[in-house]
Amino acid sequence: MDLKFFSKPPLADFVREGLRPDAGLIFRQLFDTSGSSTYTYLLGDPVSKEAVLIDPLKEMVDRDLAVVNDLGLKLKYAINTHCHADHITGSGDLKAKVTGLQSVIAESSGARADVHIKHGDVISFGADSNVINLEVRATPGHTDGCVSYVCDNMVFTGDALLIRGCGRTDFQGGSSEKLYDSVRTQLFELPDETLVYPAHDYKGRMVSTIGEEKELNPRLGLKKTKEEFVEIMSNLNLAYPKKIDESLPANLKCGIDD
Amino acid sequence: MDLKFFSKPPLADFVREGLRPDAGLIFRQLFDTSGSSTYTYLLGDPVSKEAVLIDPLKEMVDRDLAVVNDLGLKLKYAINTHCHADHITGSGDLKAKVTGLQSVIAESSGARADVHIKHGDVISFGADSNVINLEVRATPGHTDGCVSYVCDNMVFTGDALLIRGCGRTDFQGGSSEKLYDSVRTQLFELPDETLVYPAHDYKGRMVSTIGEEKELNPRLGLKKTKEEFVEIMSNLNLAYPKKIDESLPANLKCGIDD
Repeated sequence: MDLKFFSKPPLADFVREGLRPDAGLIFRQLFDTSGSSTYTYLLGDPVSKEAVLIDPLKEMVDRDLAVVNDLGLKLKYAINTHCHADHITGSGDLKAKVTGLQSVIAESSGARADVHIKHGDVISFGADSNVINLEVRATPGHTDGCVSYVCDNMVFTGDALLIRGCGRTDFQGGSSEKLYDSVRTQLFELPDETLVYPAHDYKGRMVSTIGEEKELNPRLGLKKTKEEFVEIMSNLNLAYPKKIDESLPANLKCGIDD
Repeated sequence: MDLKFFSKPPLADFVREGLRPDAGLIFRQLFDTSGSSTYTYLLGDPVSKEAVLIDPLKEMVDRDLAVVNDLGLKLKYAINTHCHADHITGSGDLKAKVTGLQSVIAESSGARADVHIKHGDVISFGADSNVINLEVRATPGHTDGCVSYVCDNMVFTGDALLIRGCGRTDFQGGSSEKLYDSVRTQLFELPDETLVYPAHDYKGRMVSTIGEEKELNPRLGLKKTKEEFVEIMSNLNLAYPKKIDESLPANLKCGIDD
């Protein structure tokens, strides 16, 4: 495959064009060691020290806060890509431990949160001189309330687009047709060199690119028609998600016990 | 802490100074899903497609080769930071599957390999226009044959320096005194912004920096004296490594069954 797009700028801790030379972005990818193979992402502004977590887990909140504190950061938002069925969000515990922290999720998820976002919104944090923006793109299909977040040359895709795969579409308002359209119109329209950071990987891979997934995703790659994708998804015969009965009610309340 | 060093260039897929603008480095960090929490690193040259794996695992060879093949790369070396006690190297299986691939390990490890390296050596791969160099630094102490590899703003530390920790020093010729000296003279002398990529992390963290470890490593940070470090290490009371009796003999033969 054409690897030219791999030579474009960078995964992390990078100097962003047009910004102060001493500014940039703090970036850490974190893996759930409790069993759900979830990735949590920490993004921070080195100027103001403001930071956000994307898809924090209840089980990993103490680990996440240790990393945040080590780097001298202050959490502003706990941001969710969707209402997860395989683990409980850390948003509630983070709110209890970090004064002023706000939870964020899509309005279309039906879940409780301090901030409800929708397609086209921008979540901002950081200093005036170094504002970091997350652009919200609606990417329904795994659930009806799934969104992806675009930040510079990175996209956080939740379960919409995984590395060489995608989230299942057989529960929580899932729709293979919608997921196909989401990936094709919202994600594959991003530049090929965009780094894809998913909510999970079960093979220990940590990042992909839009270019790779367009070429190599066995379900959703450019060679697959919508009909082929729907057929693939309808024949997965997946087991009932182990943690869904515990996770969904908790996540609809943003992980907060009433 | 001072976060200025986070704004320096990048973790991955980056344009390296002085190189062709269409060149760069392909970089993937890969996690062992079989239980040893090991990281394997893929580094590749997008021009020639030549690539190396650092610390491949026997159990993950098929996954690694799938990533290599997806990216259109050709493996030149399987490089080991040391003779591991907690898993079997993938070098042998890789040699059986990839024609021409050579295994690499430190001469001081006592292990068999195609290429034996020592402190000060440079392992090179890539096109003439985009040579990628790994500088070998001897960092004994976890084992007597441990080395770290420096590539631009990254250092692959094996078990010498872990994120907020270090490898144990109570077997395989380990020496707390030697490890302290290795970390202080070979690793902490690197620029603060150097990204630290260890062989393991048990909390799902993926990267640190030399600056962070100098300030925050609870065993080896700048505030600790050698005496304090030796005392900490002598009181760890660690269990006998579960896989050592299987791993060591295999790794001494570079993972190849006779």
